[in-house]
Amino acid sequence: MIVVLKPNLTKKQEAAVLREIRKLGYRPHVMRGVARTVIGAIGDEQTHHTLETLTAWPQVESVMPVQKRFKLTSREAHQPNSQVKVGKNVVIGGDRFHVMAGPCSVESEKQIIDTAKAVKAAGATVLRGGAFKPRTSPYEFQGLGEKGLKLLAKARKETGLPIITELLSENHAEMVAEYADILQIGARNAQNFQLLIAAAKTGKPVLLKRGLSMKVEEWLLAGEYVLANENPNLMFCERGIRTFETYTRNTLDLSTIPIVKKESHCPIVIDPSQGCGRADLVMNLCKGAAAMGADALLIEVHPNPAEAWSDGAQQLTLDNFKQLMDELPPFVAASGRTMA
Amino acid sequence: MIVVLKPNLTKKQEAAVLREIRKLGYRPHVMRGVARTVIGAIGDEQTHHTLETLTAWPQVESVMPVQKRFKLTSREAHQPNSQVKVGKNVVIGGDRFHVMAGPCSVESEKQIIDTAKAVKAAGATVLRGGAFKPRTSPYEFQGLGEKGLKLLAKARKETGLPIITELLSENHAEMVAEYADILQIGARNAQNFQLLIAAAKTGKPVLLKRGLSMKVEEWLLAGEYVLANENPNLMFCERGIRTFETYTRNTLDLSTIPIVKKESHCPIVIDPSQGCGRADLVMNLCKGAAAMGADALLIEVHPNPAEAWSDGAQQLTLDNFKQLMDELPPFVAASGRTMA
Amino acid sequence: MIVVLKPNLTKKQEAAVLREIRKLGYRPHVMRGVARTVIGAIGDEQTHHTLETLTAWPQVESVMPVQKRFKLTSREAHQPNSQVKVGKNVVIGGDRFHVMAGPCSVESEKQIIDTAKAVKAAGATVLRGGAFKPRTSPYEFQGLGEKGLKLLAKARKETGLPIITELLSENHAEMVAEYADILQIGARNAQNFQLLIAAAKTGKPVLLKRGLSMKVEEWLLAGEYVLANENPNLMFCERGIRTFETYTRNTLDLSTIPIVKKESHCPIVIDPSQGCGRADLVMNLCKGAAAMGADALLIEVHPNPAEAWSDGAQQLTLDNFKQLMDELPPFVAASGRTMA
Amino acid sequence: MIVVLKPNLTKKQEAAVLREIRKLGYRPHVMRGVARTVIGAIGDEQTHHTLETLTAWPQVESVMPVQKRFKLTSREAHQPNSQVKVGKNVVIGGDRFHVMAGPCSVESEKQIIDTAKAVKAAGATVLRGGAFKPRTSPYEFQGLGEKGLKLLAKARKETGLPIITELLSENHAEMVAEYADILQIGARNAQNFQLLIAAAKTGKPVLLKRGLSMKVEEWLLAGEYVLANENPNLMFCERGIRTFETYTRNTLDLSTIPIVKKESHCPIVIDPSQGCGRADLVMNLCKGAAAMGADALLIEVHPNPAEAWSDGAQQLTLDNFKQLMDELPPFVAASGRTMA
Repeated sequence: MIVVLKPNLTKKQEAAVLREIRKLGYRPHVMRGVARTVIGAIGDEQTHHTLETLTAWPQVESVMPVQKRFKLTSREAHQPNSQVKVGKNVVIGGDRFHVMAGPCSVESEKQIIDTAKAVKAAGATVLRGGAFKPRTSPYEFQGLGEKGLKLLAKARKETGLPIITELLSENHAEMVAEYADILQIGARNAQNFQLLIAAAKTGKPVLLKRGLSMKVEEWLLAGEYVLANENPNLMFCERGIRTFETYTRNTLDLSTIPIVKKESHCPIVIDPSQGCGRADLVMNLCKGAAAMGADALLIEVHPNPAEAWSDGAQQLTLDNFKQLMDELPPFVAASGRTMA
Repeated sequence: MIVVLKPNLTKKQEAAVLREIRKLGYRPHVMRGVARTVIGAIGDEQTHHTLETLTAWPQVESVMPVQKRFKLTSREAHQPNSQVKVGKNVVIGGDRFHVMAGPCSVESEKQIIDTAKAVKAAGATVLRGGAFKPRTSPYEFQGLGEKGLKLLAKARKETGLPIITELLSENHAEMVAEYADILQIGARNAQNFQLLIAAAKTGKPVLLKRGLSMKVEEWLLAGEYVLANENPNLMFCERGIRTFETYTRNTLDLSTIPIVKKESHCPIVIDPSQGCGRADLVMNLCKGAAAMGADALLIEVHPNPAEAWSDGAQQLTLDNFKQLMDELPPFVAASGRTMA
Repeated sequence: MIVVLKPNLTKKQEAAVLREIRKLGYRPHVMRGVARTVIGAIGDEQTHHTLETLTAWPQVESVMPVQKRFKLTSREAHQPNSQVKVGKNVVIGGDRFHVMAGPCSVESEKQIIDTAKAVKAAGATVLRGGAFKPRTSPYEFQGLGEKGLKLLAKARKETGLPIITELLSENHAEMVAEYADILQIGARNAQNFQLLIAAAKTGKPVLLKRGLSMKVEEWLLAGEYVLANENPNLMFCERGIRTFETYTRNTLDLSTIPIVKKESHCPIVIDPSQGCGRADLVMNLCKGAAAMGADALLIEVHPNPAEAWSDGAQQLTLDNFKQLMDELPPFVAASGRTMA
Repeated sequence: MIVVLKPNLTKKQEAAVLREIRKLGYRPHVMRGVARTVIGAIGDEQTHHTLETLTAWPQVESVMPVQKRFKLTSREAHQPNSQVKVGKNVVIGGDRFHVMAGPCSVESEKQIIDTAKAVKAAGATVLRGGAFKPRTSPYEFQGLGEKGLKLLAKARKETGLPIITELLSENHAEMVAEYADILQIGARNAQNFQLLIAAAKTGKPVLLKRGLSMKVEEWLLAGEYVLANENPNLMFCERGIRTFETYTRNTLDLSTIPIVKKESHCPIVIDPSQGCGRADLVMNLCKGAAAMGADALLIEVHPNPAEAWSDGAQQLTLDNFKQLMDELPPFVAASGRTMA
């Protein structure tokens, strides 16, 4: 770490800071500059006690970390791209581009099976569908629960598509893992570390959405909770951050595609449906994400969005989805991949 | 709800929207304006199916709700201020102003007991201390767990101060409730609805921190999960929101004091320590919060902040805290209250 | 507009609101709902006095506009895409995709001419370069001023590339317009309406960058100041908005490409250099922007970024730029365009 | 500055960075840490060429400044509080607390004179009123212009209150300075540096509002443009920042009171009217600001807010204002001041 001292300290005041730095396990290195004295504290920031508490000292103006705080998710820790195997035949993070599609919520057998067949026919390789829904209001539809999971399993049986569904509660981890091929951690739970640990321990692939106001570093650190619990099958999913803009529900930060590729070895998936909250923008955002090198898309598709039990405004119709899949290949090809 | 139609629709297109509105349980009321046709959909938005899915229709430009979505937490539902009884003698939300103080984390018996005695002597009426800590990185100190709870209980026994501590996991709800007088739900879990339900069900008072990017309406709706699970002892706690500013760790939104008082009957508590992340600003923010009519403060205090195991930069020393308590009474008096 | 009344008003209180609505030039239309009474105020919101002041009345809960506030920039006002002619041969907004490139600041004759030749050779069709620089600190390099404009003109003469440069002051409008082919209005001046009017009145094409915290509606309304001053040659330029994220300098909001295309007839240009502030991400963002249908890119390129007098961290080298131009065509082709 | 190198550099690569640092006028000081090599570059960051361009080098991971970038506005440059004399008898920044009040826009002689008399009678010491209005839409009322300035001058003559009014255009600087006692720079022009310079050069006191998305450091740096142009009469004015919250128009950041007091010697004024955009919250925010040590308030007051030509929703009535002034003294007293 770098410790910047306030101007005009006495020798004694400065010595006290140096003593504390040594006590916390670092070797201090003093540089006297024009306007400030700066101390380089040499030592491993990931294993030693943090020096940031020094900012509580009256002698100290600021403390700046030098090292990145994430380890296992970092590209330095693992040079090649990680590939996550989903179900029997799907590999996310390789040279094939995947599309995960399905309704926001599972509503009925007919709804999920019709959707599954349609998205498969159009080229999707994973089926999404929510059985447990985190809703801003307790008076909104909360999902069908285990019944929804059973319907997803039925849809998988009929179509062969592996399924991704959200895990909401530590107490459901085993149950959901029994049915799902990928456990999705939603944006509102992205720093619910107990849930991340529970998900990791099932051994199933985990898709970690970015929290609404999560910095990239915090997101990679949350992923660290999965890898550190011995589950290497982690994917990051950008789904828009909260900003001042109200035209879109969230602001989809597509720059996370090159950023995650640069900083981490884990796959990056883009969710444009949550990302903008408007079906009329989804198609365009999918093309951008594919062109920029995302490993996969996660798209909400519903046979009749206007009657959907949740988030109707952002779900594509089956026809919209087919059109999207027809138009996507040149964008995928431009990024050097092929459609799965 | 109000449904705004796009211009230049055919009669048939318009009739389809009206049919759908009726089908979803509302009575449509058409107003033909200069530039747009607008439909007032009359019905109870809190019990009927949402109309927002109509935005997925090509005929519809926008849908605007008219009613507020929160019920039980609203001032309309309960005109007088709610008072929350904590332990035997503390009442939050009445005409006395309370200060909850203590370390970010419980670290040792000596640390917590010394702090408890000192904050009590200075005038605090509730002891805070974290036993389970949600940390951005898995490599940081995660709290002493149940051992920490036992130390808090010991401090309560020695000083008589009731205790507030954070609940992190549904699985700990019973255990934490056994020791704590108030269950704190942290900002990162503010929309972890499963945790809110588990906390509510213990019957203990719940202090719900505002999430880092939570709108006021979403915060009141999260509180709805507590009241709807038959626990009336809910307090809201503003602890700063995430903005672009980096001088402070968060931006403390003190306007939530008059807002929560206007919209809700529940007490509002201010946490200036998390709110700014810098001990040098805490004292001033406490005075503002007291003057503006907050019901209580939640302040981090540590015998030696520079060696704290977490968040040292924002904890007051015992001397700082005593000085604050000495200076606070005129601010509390200006707001028409008295110190507890 | 829609006016929502508070519950439990007397007839007299309600009548007063209706009287006021009529007085302001609207025809009120009352709808009695379950929880609220709502008044539709029928009239042209763009020409009548605003009703929003009604929110100051104690009887009124909220007022919601129905119409969009932008007119001349809206797609409704002008169905086809507008095309902006720049210099003799460049048309922005048509079926050809353009790249504007050059240094952040003009520094010397050699620097700007070398860059102009290199970017032209690589395929750029417009040369960018700042002569007047708005700098956060008064102690930073403020640009070469008119000398910089003369150097740009010289580079145009040598290469034939039209030039885009920033206009900072109303007092410079005529002078800058004498040299420039496009006047750029920077993000910090995006709501400096006096400057927008001065720029519009020169008759030169205007490129309006989005302000750091400007909503889409406000951006289109700022553009309205250009069109309303009889200058139809307006282009919008997304350059990133300010959010909580610090990994990138700004958050580039690529969803503005489909949004501006949907709401407006004016071309949309993307500036990825300001958008992320890091040269290592620029290339990828350019590909995404091209694929998503932007009309042009605005890219910072410098012969030696590490010695640039401003914003070195975000400028591409000449080699980087050549590589980008080599890799861009399939992305442009996927969007149905051809490189200019 | 501190320059952090990437891992695994060759000696030659490292030497090149050291050479560049020397070339830019700094003395490099190498520290070899556990995970990274860090270079302290010793020299005055305020006068030397910036090193941040080094981040464009492939060898460099990050560059961190050590010094603060503002000089003349900093507390280090001028230990005592600056006091700004306004008109003949008003001093902002001393031991008296001032209230500036008046309508958003000057609308008529009767409106401004009635308001001036009423706010004076209630205790205000400065009259505010807009003659030139920056409006988001070109179709909204843009102010009475010079006619408005003449009406303000008339109100000053009748009441003796000095006046504050907004300066919008460099071209108006002399004219506005002829009438006004304080020139207000609005939030949308807070980084319109040409306007700041023009305002400074009039010699009149300048009140600089914080931009909607301006960091504290950028705000102090914008103030630097005033002081560096030999005008010492600068006041900062917090008026709310733009965040994701929509309940209030902006988020008033009251923590700027202790921050500006700590970092700068210039007075800090709070504008709660713009800060929240809702008259029903203004009174409470005023009390908080007074208690926290603001030097003055800037409040919108109108004889009939519901018929105001701009921003009616946030203006207090004359009666509200009188009540506020009656209730304010204990809050001012708690902060150790007296009402002017």
